[in-house]
Amino acid sequence: MSVQIVENGSITSPRGYQAAGIVAGLKKSGAPDMALILSDRPATAAGAFTINRGAAAPVAQCREILAAGKPARAVVINSGNANAWTGPRGLEDAHTMAAKTAEALGVSADEVFVSSTGRIGVPMPMATILKGIDLGASALSPDGGRIAAEAIMTTDTRPKSVAVAVDIGGTTVTIGGMVKGAGMIAPMMLVQPKDQATMLAYLTTDAAVDRAFLEQCLAGSLDQSFNRITVDGDMSTNDTVIVLANGAAGNPVIGADSADAGAFAEAFNHVMSYLAREIVLDGEGVTRFVELSVTGAKDDVEARRCADAIANSLLCKTAWFGADPNWGRILDAAGYAGVDMEPSRVNLDYEGLPIVRNGMDAGTPESDQVKAISKREFCIDLDLGVGDGQFTVWTCDITYEYVKINADYHT
Amino acid sequence: MSVQIVENGSITSPRGYQAAGIVAGLKKSGAPDMALILSDRPATAAGAFTINRGAAAPVAQCREILAAGKPARAVVINSGNANAWTGPRGLEDAHTMAAKTAEALGVSADEVFVSSTGRIGVPMPMATILKGIDLGASALSPDGGRIAAEAIMTTDTRPKSVAVAVDIGGTTVTIGGMVKGAGMIAPMMLVQPKDQATMLAYLTTDAAVDRAFLEQCLAGSLDQSFNRITVDGDMSTNDTVIVLANGAAGNPVIGADSADAGAFAEAFNHVMSYLAREIVLDGEGVTRFVELSVTGAKDDVEARRCADAIANSLLCKTAWFGADPNWGRILDAAGYAGVDMEPSRVNLDYEGLPIVRNGMDAGTPESDQVKAISKREFCIDLDLGVGDGQFTVWTCDITYEYVKINADYHT
Repeated sequence: MSVQIVENGSITSPRGYQAAGIVAGLKKSGAPDMALILSDRPATAAGAFTINRGAAAPVAQCREILAAGKPARAVVINSGNANAWTGPRGLEDAHTMAAKTAEALGVSADEVFVSSTGRIGVPMPMATILKGIDLGASALSPDGGRIAAEAIMTTDTRPKSVAVAVDIGGTTVTIGGMVKGAGMIAPMMLVQPKDQATMLAYLTTDAAVDRAFLEQCLAGSLDQSFNRITVDGDMSTNDTVIVLANGAAGNPVIGADSADAGAFAEAFNHVMSYLAREIVLDGEGVTRFVELSVTGAKDDVEARRCADAIANSLLCKTAWFGADPNWGRILDAAGYAGVDMEPSRVNLDYEGLPIVRNGMDAGTPESDQVKAISKREFCIDLDLGVGDGQFTVWTCDITYEYVKINADYHT
Repeated sequence: MSVQIVENGSITSPRGYQAAGIVAGLKKSGAPDMALILSDRPATAAGAFTINRGAAAPVAQCREILAAGKPARAVVINSGNANAWTGPRGLEDAHTMAAKTAEALGVSADEVFVSSTGRIGVPMPMATILKGIDLGASALSPDGGRIAAEAIMTTDTRPKSVAVAVDIGGTTVTIGGMVKGAGMIAPMMLVQPKDQATMLAYLTTDAAVDRAFLEQCLAGSLDQSFNRITVDGDMSTNDTVIVLANGAAGNPVIGADSADAGAFAEAFNHVMSYLAREIVLDGEGVTRFVELSVTGAKDDVEARRCADAIANSLLCKTAWFGADPNWGRILDAAGYAGVDMEPSRVNLDYEGLPIVRNGMDAGTPESDQVKAISKREFCIDLDLGVGDGQFTVWTCDITYEYVKINADYHT
């Protein structure tokens, strides 16, 4: 059995999880703004976090939990306030959120992960938050996954959830996930404890997985998922992925050497990649999704640097918005990325159509080029002509709507 | 005598220069699209060029001229086509432009600099170009500086020229300059021949200056002018500064050890800085000019890296458009710049108003913050709290108009 998609899947599709999404009153709109996730038993946990030097207080709190190396039980999440650049009080507030959640759920404070997203630099409205935690605890439900996904949204236009099932040694295990994104999206996360993304992603599974392998799955998947996406090039202070594996499925514990390690990793990667794509597709003001692959680079690091330069180029992103095939902007960005390239061997394709060959226009009629890049989703392939390095990024256009959202966000 | 501004100054304000701007027919709009500059005598030359790996053919041609180390006589410039990513034919075309200009002006081909700006990847329409050179040669005039500045424009909304006069040992020497910019503006230029910016800038002076000192003035000035500006973060394939010093003023040759070296360098720097500011002020769709200074960095390199991250952050640029004081976006960008910072010692000011103190909101009323950043030009000062490194960039907002210009450029 390969990976099966679970209909209407969410973080509560795996056994042994409850979730809630409630209105605490953090958002002026009155939309749901706090979420809780509870595992009915201690769960092996793994996490990956932003490398931003001004990482938010809840990121520090999550790192503390993971560093202790113990199983976890719950996650508390608020939207509307990032609890970043809030000084010593910020960290105190994050700890208070964990303690209050622990009390409301009957678990221990060091079993609770805290996440926040929203405005930076504003002290947390703790009275509202604490009331929200009580509301959330009383709203927990085995069907709460999808409302939880709504509660973590900021400028997202829709909740983003998924679940897949996979056979592990005769036992069906399920992996669920939810994510929010939209803006300040250019994550680069490292797995705790090696080191320390405001996209927030939560994965739950009822599989029993040993911690080292769970971290290996997470680390191996990041470059094929969240660490390959960009909406606006701005890496957040709060980017977070938390994974819980509670073993409720009753399978033999999966480790790196298990016969089913590959099958689990594939299913895990499916959820991570799906959620990452969803962030770009629902990015602020996005009208086009671009899969940009750079090959022929000196090495994978240079391929990534080149792909990132193009993916974040304002001139490329506005051209994509206008369905303008102006390939010069792509090669311009490649040229300033600071990577090795051999112009006379550079090739570029749009959706498989030859656009540049040997550093010169390939002669494909412009009308064909426009057609290729007028799609909602299209592929660009760039070969730098010097080596075997490669990397693929998922990016998007920049639109009037993007400017509107971000010039008006505050007021 | 300190630096004096010349009224209606241009590249033909210094003695011994003629210039022309004519309609060759490269621009569909029918606006002037080719310019010529001619010195009536051999001029000491210096130049600085983009470090883009896909540097355009005319950039390669200019580097050849400078490498030969001989005095120069003329510059030929076209807008409407960048002659970049045009393969071997592009370099041939650049050489043909130099040869044709030399013939029309009665000088030698190795005394002629070639510059191009416009679309990347399209072969040069040489018949139109060659006809334009003849037209330009017949239109040369000692009053041609300002029309030349019009002819080099692309998405610029106005021509940009300046001239200053300074006393050098009893002789008044004049330095003129013109520039075009608007988009694909994030230059990082190095002075030939150390190594190799589509902004194009041309400076003329009637001072006699030795080449080493002219290069020293250029190299010393770049970080205080063109290499500190960004409009969209996209470094061009064609960025170029060419300086000609023809000695027509009759002053004793200025070298690094001359008594007047400082006075000349100051005047030179004035022209360079003025033109650089003008590019940002006339950048595509720009409504606000931001002088962003980073201090307290580990070193100047880190200060620049931090300032560049903020200056090119889409979230910061859209906030400036909306006059949104959302300082979290600035600290977020500082945090992902990959530089040392001490969050608890980070300070931020808008126009001298305290916004962040010790990594936390300084409590300045929001209405005062909004007032500070609602100006057409304002200053932001960020102190990272770790060292003595500092750097200042000149940047701008990103607006609906920017998106319109660049989503519609091609069609």
